[in-house]
Amino acid sequence: MRPSKRQPDEMRAVSFERGVSKHAEGSCLVKFGDTHVLCTASLEERVPPWLRNSGKGWVTAEYGMLPRATGDRMRREASTGKQGGRTLEIQRLIGRSLRAVVDLEALGEVQITVDCDVIQADGGTRTASITGGFVALYDCLAWMEARKMLTVSKVLKDHVAAISCGIHGGTCVIDLDYVEDSSAGADANFVMTGKGGIVEIQGTAEGDAFSEAQFAELLALAKKGIARLVDLQKMAVG
Amino acid sequence: MRPSKRQPDEMRAVSFERGVSKHAEGSCLVKFGDTHVLCTASLEERVPPWLRNSGKGWVTAEYGMLPRATGDRMRREASTGKQGGRTLEIQRLIGRSLRAVVDLEALGEVQITVDCDVIQADGGTRTASITGGFVALYDCLAWMEARKMLTVSKVLKDHVAAISCGIHGGTCVIDLDYVEDSSAGADANFVMTGKGGIVEIQGTAEGDAFSEAQFAELLALAKKGIARLVDLQKMAVG
Amino acid sequence: MRPSKRQPDEMRAVSFERGVSKHAEGSCLVKFGDTHVLCTASLEERVPPWLRNSGKGWVTAEYGMLPRATGDRMRREASTGKQGGRTLEIQRLIGRSLRAVVDLEALGEVQITVDCDVIQADGGTRTASITGGFVALYDCLAWMEARKMLTVSKVLKDHVAAISCGIHGGTCVIDLDYVEDSSAGADANFVMTGKGGIVEIQGTAEGDAFSEAQFAELLALAKKGIARLVDLQKMAVG
Amino acid sequence: MRPSKRQPDEMRAVSFERGVSKHAEGSCLVKFGDTHVLCTASLEERVPPWLRNSGKGWVTAEYGMLPRATGDRMRREASTGKQGGRTLEIQRLIGRSLRAVVDLEALGEVQITVDCDVIQADGGTRTASITGGFVALYDCLAWMEARKMLTVSKVLKDHVAAISCGIHGGTCVIDLDYVEDSSAGADANFVMTGKGGIVEIQGTAEGDAFSEAQFAELLALAKKGIARLVDLQKMAVG
Amino acid sequence: MRPSKRQPDEMRAVSFERGVSKHAEGSCLVKFGDTHVLCTASLEERVPPWLRNSGKGWVTAEYGMLPRATGDRMRREASTGKQGGRTLEIQRLIGRSLRAVVDLEALGEVQITVDCDVIQADGGTRTASITGGFVALYDCLAWMEARKMLTVSKVLKDHVAAISCGIHGGTCVIDLDYVEDSSAGADANFVMTGKGGIVEIQGTAEGDAFSEAQFAELLALAKKGIARLVDLQKMAVG
Amino acid sequence: MRPSKRQPDEMRAVSFERGVSKHAEGSCLVKFGDTHVLCTASLEERVPPWLRNSGKGWVTAEYGMLPRATGDRMRREASTGKQGGRTLEIQRLIGRSLRAVVDLEALGEVQITVDCDVIQADGGTRTASITGGFVALYDCLAWMEARKMLTVSKVLKDHVAAISCGIHGGTCVIDLDYVEDSSAGADANFVMTGKGGIVEIQGTAEGDAFSEAQFAELLALAKKGIARLVDLQKMAVG
Repeated sequence: MRPSKRQPDEMRAVSFERGVSKHAEGSCLVKFGDTHVLCTASLEERVPPWLRNSGKGWVTAEYGMLPRATGDRMRREASTGKQGGRTLEIQRLIGRSLRAVVDLEALGEVQITVDCDVIQADGGTRTASITGGFVALYDCLAWMEARKMLTVSKVLKDHVAAISCGIHGGTCVIDLDYVEDSSAGADANFVMTGKGGIVEIQGTAEGDAFSEAQFAELLALAKKGIARLVDLQKMAVG
Repeated sequence: MRPSKRQPDEMRAVSFERGVSKHAEGSCLVKFGDTHVLCTASLEERVPPWLRNSGKGWVTAEYGMLPRATGDRMRREASTGKQGGRTLEIQRLIGRSLRAVVDLEALGEVQITVDCDVIQADGGTRTASITGGFVALYDCLAWMEARKMLTVSKVLKDHVAAISCGIHGGTCVIDLDYVEDSSAGADANFVMTGKGGIVEIQGTAEGDAFSEAQFAELLALAKKGIARLVDLQKMAVG
Repeated sequence: MRPSKRQPDEMRAVSFERGVSKHAEGSCLVKFGDTHVLCTASLEERVPPWLRNSGKGWVTAEYGMLPRATGDRMRREASTGKQGGRTLEIQRLIGRSLRAVVDLEALGEVQITVDCDVIQADGGTRTASITGGFVALYDCLAWMEARKMLTVSKVLKDHVAAISCGIHGGTCVIDLDYVEDSSAGADANFVMTGKGGIVEIQGTAEGDAFSEAQFAELLALAKKGIARLVDLQKMAVG
Repeated sequence: MRPSKRQPDEMRAVSFERGVSKHAEGSCLVKFGDTHVLCTASLEERVPPWLRNSGKGWVTAEYGMLPRATGDRMRREASTGKQGGRTLEIQRLIGRSLRAVVDLEALGEVQITVDCDVIQADGGTRTASITGGFVALYDCLAWMEARKMLTVSKVLKDHVAAISCGIHGGTCVIDLDYVEDSSAGADANFVMTGKGGIVEIQGTAEGDAFSEAQFAELLALAKKGIARLVDLQKMAVG
Repeated sequence: MRPSKRQPDEMRAVSFERGVSKHAEGSCLVKFGDTHVLCTASLEERVPPWLRNSGKGWVTAEYGMLPRATGDRMRREASTGKQGGRTLEIQRLIGRSLRAVVDLEALGEVQITVDCDVIQADGGTRTASITGGFVALYDCLAWMEARKMLTVSKVLKDHVAAISCGIHGGTCVIDLDYVEDSSAGADANFVMTGKGGIVEIQGTAEGDAFSEAQFAELLALAKKGIARLVDLQKMAVG
Repeated sequence: MRPSKRQPDEMRAVSFERGVSKHAEGSCLVKFGDTHVLCTASLEERVPPWLRNSGKGWVTAEYGMLPRATGDRMRREASTGKQGGRTLEIQRLIGRSLRAVVDLEALGEVQITVDCDVIQADGGTRTASITGGFVALYDCLAWMEARKMLTVSKVLKDHVAAISCGIHGGTCVIDLDYVEDSSAGADANFVMTGKGGIVEIQGTAEGDAFSEAQFAELLALAKKGIARLVDLQKMAVG
């Protein structure tokens, strides 16, 4: 039995609240149970140096956690003077995942920065960030379309969403919360498109190595969960 | 006429939403109109080095802004590698203001860190932080009292709240929003206790110097506004 | 009785020594008793990015303390890797104060940086810096006038000077030295122009909050003291 | 056809040169073709704070690249003032991979740091680092066994090695060099034990998402390659 | 002819003003012509970690320049976030030079930090710092002797002073000012004791390499100059 | 007797292995006994800002040590966040030494960066770096000559090499290894050209000051050793 009492293939309640920011071109407060991430998509005219005068745009992401998003207060990265390895790793993952479904040429020479700030953490902050970040990005593109800057359907090639799976107590389970994650024997994050293509896989054995069969089971769970998340995204932005 | 259409002595709608964090001992989402600040109060056993074995505790504050809390996206302080002068100045002010109403000996040898993170900014973020930070602090102390760690009424000497006033178009007005603040000829922040004592005054002429009479008018406005904020705090924590 | 044996409204001996730097366009060693600050005004052709091609100039300030300017040696900020919050707060204050009396359009597209380095500290370093920084700035402008770059009387709109006041042992006193400042119940810094306009007020209750009446008394003391400082500035640059 | 003219399942020549450092307890210069990584394992008495007095030890890794290990000179991380996100990500991966085969209790309360410094890069530096880092770690443990500090067979639970696979020109290939990696449509790194257990999987679609079938093919290639690497490790340390 | 009109073996006017700091245990404003350095010696109870409980003390130095000590304003090191290579090199040299004449065991387990802050620069700041730093150190030791903490004559083994020599227009000259230094073909700094022992030599060819004979001539000039500086030190502290 | 059993004027075995880097325009693995330094020379089109459009080029150097190049593992400078004073001092010395034999006008407006990375340290890393760095620089220039970018004989004015000498057990000895260096009473580094001109001298008394006669003896040893190193360089690049 999972600590959360959920079935192995049962995700937490997922919700998307759009338009939560007065300023951002796109925004979404995404909740995966008690994990709450505020995602904003900001449009800027300038692109990174290597894209200047290329006609191509860029989508990037930044990730942060409020100091008391977690059970124990963590030191504020702004005051330690640098972003930790975990933060950099996650924000690179979010950026790659979102770019996987964007046609950068169709976007035109602008940059969209998706900020994912964890207001409250209970496991799965990176997968919630990708899934909610997509909604913020979508709304930013819609904002641009409304101003005749582009056509969303030409820029966005597909949906993208993410979920974690892991082996808990010997059983493969989906969408681990913090308590489950802390005692899991393996932890894997999957990022997939609406059509079921694989964008990213990150799997880590926490204790003993896991087998191919176990990994196949995690992948099957993830596939099902991501299909559900994409349905929810479609309802949200519909 | 103020850009906000408000009367000179009319504050924006103020609200306090308590208990917004699953993890923090005390928390409050404070809104002064479109300025939204998430305040959490975190209890820690350790105190700063200069207080070790003194029997006295400490209350401190940290302040941050999400990158897209503002009209234009600002660079994330965690990625620039340091907190800017404005951030340091504000968090020092919040800390001093809250300590002004706490009996650090009665608190005992623990530290409470009040994090004020601006989710959305529209002027007056430091005054909202102090006013809402007090509520988060109160709830943290109540949490401690419920665990027999202290008696709130012995630790908290009074309420404390803050408001900004300024001279806009030649008229003294209260609680400026961003548009008003940008075009104000003077900007002053007042921090006062429930009994009307002055804790902090920070007044700055943006263009021409202002007169004593004008300053007196700003102070009178602030006094009235802070009394109202303290009433609202009392209703919130009542 | 004040520890310094001075009357409540008695400032320390104030002196300005001009032309102390072989290199700087303007310079002044200002002394408020045992507080000694070396102020230099440096002219540079370049302006901050946001003023390029605007025809307007800029006046800014930096503040520093020699490590043993104080009773105990403090760590050198260059070796800690960053300027502390107090340093940033003070140099922002000095810059704003000086700009309050400068017509940046009449200055033309140049930048003047006023460096205020505390050689020896005994309380009131920020007020000495503003008051002496004005003299260095004046001499820099005179240097420019001698080279037909501008007319001082068109650039400088007024004098500006600063003084601290505080409540010590229940009495309102002016120009606190370190010992007095350490035991004061309130500490306020006032920046005013030659005509008596208020440029900046920063008041802080160190222990209990103070009353409006007390604050009015501090302001009255400051007004008188600043008038005296402006007279001394006029004698110095006359 | 691969740019390297190799068969899809053909790895580059792999070699391990042990004992290359006069000072380190264990060391290995590993070569995967033109990718050369110097791995040293350093024994230290102190452990991280969270393990003090726990009786357990720690294995950690650091990763670096000489500035001209690459085709174009890269800026030295020591002079930029921080390790980049890619560096942090890789050294965390190496550390986790090595710890997966170490019994930290049997190690005892010491720390072993495995430094992987890329002398020359031609793709696959992280997989070479893990595979060669294992040999350095093994020799460090053997050094300790020779001094009666532990029994290697009790501390090391298995071998661990790593290889990259990717989709190049539509074909699944193993051990990509730099040219192949730059034009690959997907890139995946696999870390597995001697018994074939999975320790880490990191797969990324560079352009279009890839399918489950493609991923299974990459995994099969990796499994075969890692078995070969483990054989080579055994011959090296035999 | 030297730009300064001085004879090849003619130093600038040298003066030592002692007791210039109200706070420091020892202090000296040293002038080599227009090069002015404020030296303070600060006594602290704590020693560096590697000397704890050794009974031995430590003498160290820090060096800094006010931003407008030079002809063009230089960026403040505290705001750039680090001390430059030149600064670190100079302060290491000052520290080694002073330690060369101190018996660290006789000093006892305390640390003396000699801060050398260049108020105005005109060439030779490092040699003035060493020469004046010795006087500040002497006075700090005398302050300690007066409090029965040590006997100066047992701690100080000798005097130490420094001078620069260089080849200007083909002629070997002593004590170069900034203009001379900028156009010199070689630049050498010598640190010697009162008895004529060599403590440090740093010679650099700016353009063409120099010969042994030239170097011998520079050394002879330095020897004479340092003997004169030591005489002046003796008169100062006598 | 020296700990190394060598004669006072006997250097360690010196070797140069050229072309060790697949990527760098010039490269050399230099060995002075157990001190091994990998030197690469990298050609870049861009020059420092102060040389833009001057027609002149630049030669600079960077220096680093692998963390376990030394007997005890040292902290990686990339992770401490800055290069230490010793590192900066050494890389400035290498750069100056190499520039002393380069005609920067004949080089043309390009920059060559010589990276000297210590793979294994046993004393004398800076002298090995200069001596081997020259060979890497030479090969980079030859690479350019082969592409008709310049004529080596017009750019390189002479050879340059370096050696350390010191006083060990009262005897002047050459090319100290780590053990000898640690117990030497004086340590001096000499950089000289093929024609015997002096480029740099850095001499430091570790304990007691040394005499002129001793210094002359160190210089004589160095002269002989550097002549030998230049012969070896000529054989290497011949």
